[in-house]
Amino acid sequence: MEDIFQNFANIPTKTIAPGYSAKLIHTATNTLNFLEVKAGSSIGAHRHHHEQLAFVLEGKFELTVNGENRILEPGIFAIIPPDAEHSGTAVTDCKLLDVFSPVREDFRAL
Amino acid sequence: MEDIFQNFANIPTKTIAPGYSAKLIHTATNTLNFLEVKAGSSIGAHRHHHEQLAFVLEGKFELTVNGENRILEPGIFAIIPPDAEHSGTAVTDCKLLDVFSPVREDFRAL
Repeated sequence: MEDIFQNFANIPTKTIAPGYSAKLIHTATNTLNFLEVKAGSSIGAHRHHHEQLAFVLEGKFELTVNGENRILEPGIFAIIPPDAEHSGTAVTDCKLLDVFSPVREDFRAL
Repeated sequence: MEDIFQNFANIPTKTIAPGYSAKLIHTATNTLNFLEVKAGSSIGAHRHHHEQLAFVLEGKFELTVNGENRILEPGIFAIIPPDAEHSGTAVTDCKLLDVFSPVREDFRAL
């Protein structure tokens, strides 16, 4: 049985793209990704069948979804529909939280 | 269709217990609850069939699950299994994120 209390320090940090350091939590239905991103680091246009909620916990991150772009910051988040093309760039060093549903099996396999 | 970019200021703040101010986001599979809690505010023992992940984004929150207690802070989170009895007290003013699966229909009805 999984421990109830967990320490982020015990979750391995995985580099999922240059400048994108991820701590991944997988549940039965979701993947939560706590990311630290270096200013200027970009992730190119991609899409996946998972719904994605994208939150900025600290800093600013420019997100483009289906050609529409916005600067996300702690007061502004995004709901990226399944299969929507999206890309992004960290405007500052930032801390992000992405919540995917269903589980990102590709991330689990990293 | 739901807007991709959303502003927390447009989500109504709901008081789900004294001192617990909630901004709720419901997806097809989850409820995310961004909470601001006043120091000293407690939530009594309760249980629900939803799995709950409990994160502290700022501050300290004392959580008890199945009789085991711990101070949560940004480096320490909890995975509360379905139907586990839990209670808590804000040690400081704090910002929390709870992720429930499935959706908290009781919260949606508030």
